[in-house]
Amino acid sequence: MNRKPIAQVEPVEMKHEGFKGMFARYLWTAIDGCPHYAMRIMEFEPGGHTSYHSHLEEHEFYFLEGEAAYVDGEGNQITVSPGDGIYCPPDEPHQIKNVGSTRMKMICTIPILPGGDGKTPAPRSGA
Amino acid sequence: MNRKPIAQVEPVEMKHEGFKGMFARYLWTAIDGCPHYAMRIMEFEPGGHTSYHSHLEEHEFYFLEGEAAYVDGEGNQITVSPGDGIYCPPDEPHQIKNVGSTRMKMICTIPILPGGDGKTPAPRSGA
Repeated sequence: MNRKPIAQVEPVEMKHEGFKGMFARYLWTAIDGCPHYAMRIMEFEPGGHTSYHSHLEEHEFYFLEGEAAYVDGEGNQITVSPGDGIYCPPDEPHQIKNVGSTRMKMICTIPILPGGDGKTPAPRSGA
Repeated sequence: MNRKPIAQVEPVEMKHEGFKGMFARYLWTAIDGCPHYAMRIMEFEPGGHTSYHSHLEEHEFYFLEGEAAYVDGEGNQITVSPGDGIYCPPDEPHQIKNVGSTRMKMICTIPILPGGDGKTPAPRSGA
């Protein structure tokens, strides 16, 4: 058994192209010995967002705090509140934004596919 | 993409032997098309608890509300607070209790192994 208070998990700024004001706390990943999937807490400053992107991995999200918007695979934007869950299937484009005036937090889980580590998605085939 | 407000996910009382006052909201499971793992919100009434049990699947937990206790693989009990994460490796015994006076809530994730569905653990080999 391993226990971590989330406040002791260092937030890492996401510096990929198209990401802004977003920080990841990597709670449970391959480094912790997790064999199948990873759990991260993502925090967005007001105005913070991911890029509109896709990867081989699905996501299971659960929103904890703040006012979010989610752009789906067809480019439609919906608002998301604390207590909402969202499932994003493998390879479906998505973007997440903080559209409120306070910090927005969500749980973001992702499978650990071959070549992935729970922090960065796995390379696409041929990579 | 699929979105579910957690309040619209019906709580199901866990009636397995040794469980008491515990309800599962099955947010994302095999029924939703999730290929690798499941996310559930577990709610415990004051005095509610799981049994002390184990299964082939690991757990990644994140505690949301209330005052919990966790009994680890050696039988030691620790207190757990909102914002704590716990990782329970495959096949390690564990028990979770609500030791506070208010409802306790946690996120409980589990891989979907062959024969499992994200709600009930997979049968052990030979079953």
